[in-house]
Amino acid sequence: MVSKRELIFITTNSHKVKEINELADAESRNITILHRDYDYPELQLDEIEAVAQESANYIREKTGIEDSFFIEDTGLFIPALNGFPGPFSAFVFRTIGNEGILKLMADKKGEARKATFKTVVAFCEAPQKTPVLFVGIAEGRIAEEIRGRGGFGYDPIFEFEGAEKTFAEMSTEEKNHVSHRSRAFEKLLDYLS
Amino acid sequence: MVSKRELIFITTNSHKVKEINELADAESRNITILHRDYDYPELQLDEIEAVAQESANYIREKTGIEDSFFIEDTGLFIPALNGFPGPFSAFVFRTIGNEGILKLMADKKGEARKATFKTVVAFCEAPQKTPVLFVGIAEGRIAEEIRGRGGFGYDPIFEFEGAEKTFAEMSTEEKNHVSHRSRAFEKLLDYLS
Repeated sequence: MVSKRELIFITTNSHKVKEINELADAESRNITILHRDYDYPELQLDEIEAVAQESANYIREKTGIEDSFFIEDTGLFIPALNGFPGPFSAFVFRTIGNEGILKLMADKKGEARKATFKTVVAFCEAPQKTPVLFVGIAEGRIAEEIRGRGGFGYDPIFEFEGAEKTFAEMSTEEKNHVSHRSRAFEKLLDYLS
Repeated sequence: MVSKRELIFITTNSHKVKEINELADAESRNITILHRDYDYPELQLDEIEAVAQESANYIREKTGIEDSFFIEDTGLFIPALNGFPGPFSAFVFRTIGNEGILKLMADKKGEARKATFKTVVAFCEAPQKTPVLFVGIAEGRIAEEIRGRGGFGYDPIFEFEGAEKTFAEMSTEEKNHVSHRSRAFEKLLDYLS
């Protein structure tokens, strides 16, 4: 019997843990995700690739962690709003929320409603090396109103390209099939196997 | 003749340098401000006091600077938007701008239009000690439209409490008399004398 490989996922966001766990199970690769609830500081940078890389370096240096671990950073990027809320998606969600985004988009039609969800997974393999980055993207548009009760964050206003549904109208399984987070995580799984 | 004391102001924002210089001149204290255009990374934290303190520590540690220096961080905090744009005021200004703030405030009346400008100056005295923080606050409200051509950033939508004017409708001298930045900087000057 092959023993399962353990990977530590460092995040304070339990929704992300749930998604990644279901994905690891569905893939039935020999991976077990261990959640570590640790709140690390992120830098204010416009590129979430750089944010994730610096965060992983910070965790490695400050915590002295010796096991393999990964973190992820996700942003919603709206070109018509010059990339807002981008790297500050979590703060913007906590303050103005989906209602705020809809107000900012009220006068935007057609192509101007386009949006991209991007996840960057930064993986540090034991013994600790430079973080390796995996990027996953989902293209879509900002819906005209909040729809659906699944998912979390901006899911209820993000209509996945080609689907009639927002991410919040999909089951976790459906969302995991196409989402930015699952695409980034699958690249990590491919890298590991 | 008393020789002037030199203080280095580390920032990439030339508007802030102009304001601080006029203030130092007007106060006619023996201080000369030297501008150093250095772009340091800021942390993503909800309290700008903590952002400024960490930035000053970072500059001290990474650049090996031995002269006395200060930095400042300023945020516009709107209680009706749960503190948005707060510590991310610069990014929010670059992306959605004053027009975006006005859209988010369109349905806000009376007390709900209240806003606070806050500046934190973090001063590191040679030989480098722990940063000392000075906080300056200006209370006001978000105007219904953009007014005035002076100042910079959110000045054209910030009506100072008790004034009929936005900060952008004031001269630099008028603004310096009451602004968050001048109040924080005056505390630093008092500390130095």
